[in-house]
Amino acid sequence: MARPVLVFDVNETLLDIRTLEPLFARWFDDAGAMRRWFAQMVLYSQSLTLAGRYLPFGSIASDVLGMLAAIEDRALPQGAASDLKAASTQLPAHGDVEEGLASLLEQGFRLVTLTNSDSDTQAEQLSNAGIARFFEAQFSVDSVEQFKPATATYRHVATSLQVDISRLAMIACHSWDLLGAAAAGMQPVFIRREGNSQPGFASAGVREVDRIGELAALDW
Amino acid sequence: MARPVLVFDVNETLLDIRTLEPLFARWFDDAGAMRRWFAQMVLYSQSLTLAGRYLPFGSIASDVLGMLAAIEDRALPQGAASDLKAASTQLPAHGDVEEGLASLLEQGFRLVTLTNSDSDTQAEQLSNAGIARFFEAQFSVDSVEQFKPATATYRHVATSLQVDISRLAMIACHSWDLLGAAAAGMQPVFIRREGNSQPGFASAGVREVDRIGELAALDW
Repeated sequence: MARPVLVFDVNETLLDIRTLEPLFARWFDDAGAMRRWFAQMVLYSQSLTLAGRYLPFGSIASDVLGMLAAIEDRALPQGAASDLKAASTQLPAHGDVEEGLASLLEQGFRLVTLTNSDSDTQAEQLSNAGIARFFEAQFSVDSVEQFKPATATYRHVATSLQVDISRLAMIACHSWDLLGAAAAGMQPVFIRREGNSQPGFASAGVREVDRIGELAALDW
Repeated sequence: MARPVLVFDVNETLLDIRTLEPLFARWFDDAGAMRRWFAQMVLYSQSLTLAGRYLPFGSIASDVLGMLAAIEDRALPQGAASDLKAASTQLPAHGDVEEGLASLLEQGFRLVTLTNSDSDTQAEQLSNAGIARFFEAQFSVDSVEQFKPATATYRHVATSLQVDISRLAMIACHSWDLLGAAAAGMQPVFIRREGNSQPGFASAGVREVDRIGELAALDW
């Protein structure tokens, strides 16, 4: 079989969101608040899509930060939302990413991204992390204004690349992303990142790797 | 204007999920794990709907519990999932619920429920909490196999009751539920319960109350 085009999720899959923890430690006296914020942000992005609405991921990020502060009875300092936005565009790549992507390219894989971030934010994120050069295209949910795991978003990638969707592999550390990718007809691959795992109902037929470089060795 | 039919969310809006905390305190040495589990369960229910799949909420609850244990490197005791299921059907009503519902009925309101729980579980939950008698109908997402906030689920209530959807008010302590209700054409009312608040983008046009009994005094 021909090798698939590898479609990478960005936030947490390629970029390390743990660098946001010091902000949450300062605001909530608890670095673990970062995970509560991230989960609620994803939950609300999906809710908006189910309700037929769209807002950029960054807007949801700010408002959900405010919601979490209200729930936990914390007063955020002036500029907290801008600090979070700035930090979100400065996430470093995980340690295995640069070497792994370079090796995949050398071995002839085609590499693209698909993220919940809006296009401008993604361009900044990948450029600041020093990995933009590896991707022949960067896709965002803002093209269809439906957050992952909505089917239309995955289909948009296949249509844009003029590749049958079964020839695309989605690489993500979020099982909920792979649920949608698989439903749309893509090949799902889970990459293990700290703070993530798959619920039983979502794991059937999903292959797992620990590092980006291991993707080459899968039996495509 | 005629009074609306009041459509109540069940878990956390009517029933107090905080009674699950001792289980999570035992399993994770942290009562706060209950909120992490609940957020992930809701997130995954929405993911399944976006991916066009359906599983009963109780199945998602068990598998997400297992996922959380894997993420946090905890070994769950034998029977943990059954203990959670049993406890979920034994949730007590919040302190304002019984009196509030009785008063609404006396004042001539029609009361129904709409929950993510499957029909059998809901029947057990409302009966065990001693509040089943207040509702002329109990609706579950399992009729359309799409979790809230999917539009079809809210529409199903209107169709079944043969009431125009604009004559239904959705009462929930989850802003994500009200996003979908409003998008479907219902009147959204947020009831404040500990551990919940509304993100800014979701709060426009949503009225808020602190207790069930206050619903009667809204300007319908």
